[in-house]
Amino acid sequence: MGRWEGDAAGRLREAAMKLYGERGYDQTTVADIAAEAGLTARTFFRHYADKREVLFAGSDLLLAGMVQALEATPASEGPMRAVAASLAAASEAVGRDRAFSRRRRALIEANAELRERELIKMATIAEALRDGLRRRGVPAADASLAAEAGIAVFRVAWEQWTSGPDDRDLGAIMRETIERLTVVTADH
Amino acid sequence: MGRWEGDAAGRLREAAMKLYGERGYDQTTVADIAAEAGLTARTFFRHYADKREVLFAGSDLLLAGMVQALEATPASEGPMRAVAASLAAASEAVGRDRAFSRRRRALIEANAELRERELIKMATIAEALRDGLRRRGVPAADASLAAEAGIAVFRVAWEQWTSGPDDRDLGAIMRETIERLTVVTADH
Repeated sequence: MGRWEGDAAGRLREAAMKLYGERGYDQTTVADIAAEAGLTARTFFRHYADKREVLFAGSDLLLAGMVQALEATPASEGPMRAVAASLAAASEAVGRDRAFSRRRRALIEANAELRERELIKMATIAEALRDGLRRRGVPAADASLAAEAGIAVFRVAWEQWTSGPDDRDLGAIMRETIERLTVVTADH
Repeated sequence: MGRWEGDAAGRLREAAMKLYGERGYDQTTVADIAAEAGLTARTFFRHYADKREVLFAGSDLLLAGMVQALEATPASEGPMRAVAASLAAASEAVGRDRAFSRRRRALIEANAELRERELIKMATIAEALRDGLRRRGVPAADASLAAEAGIAVFRVAWEQWTSGPDDRDLGAIMRETIERLTVVTADH
């Protein structure tokens, strides 16, 4: 593997984000992305299944990290504490590059297909958290509620982090959002 | 409009549910459904955009009813109270026919395309509730959290209602689920 080939995935991602931003997602092909990165389409497909997956490449790792953090929480802790640990892990995983996250969010919001893919990603994470909680012996309804509440917190915190002038890190916003959720839902 | 034509939408729905259950959703065509109902494909398309929409025909009405209930809640009430009113309206709208809801759920869970459509439906409702809350002057993050929490409650209560031996009505399960959400999230 040559010097450049080593960072092929990163270069392809950069090239894709540049072209998606300039031409629009629909108007960009895999061939365009590979050419922009100075690589071949064959190399592209070694790293990404298709042009959509450039934007979702980290999803499996994100999910695995969240489930791992949930499972690492002591069995004596309640479901929402395990979910909170999982959200902290998510913040570590996706909270490093706000500029990238902002560009990614703008692209996703502008495209129905990408919005659907993002919905599926979040639903998949919710199911994995729910299943993880059930394996810990949490009753079905509580497991579903804690998992869905966690995803609600993730979404709202991530939106705030990517849109606001808020300079705090994603983890801090997540913790505040969990707190806020309990305040908002308590008055029903 | 003849005697039968008057209930064409209902007959088409029944025919579709029968064939989806017998042959599978993917193996059923609009022509099959129309023939089973003793109607023409042209009549089918007067009532439904495509075979998928037979399962989502009530979505717009559901959303409208939920937003209306939210807006009818006194301005002095907090966001989760407005969302609770909206969930009560949803229970009225979709909580009448449990046998149909069970069949619908089984079909949706067995088909990736239908699961995606259902995710989009719920996301659309969440956005409508959030926007409704913002129009009431609720701050952005609280509006999103209350709306997402409401959808979490809807999902979990609906799953319980369609799967369990639980004979209570959907509205009662919704109210209990809101209560449960606050208990589960409080310990974080």
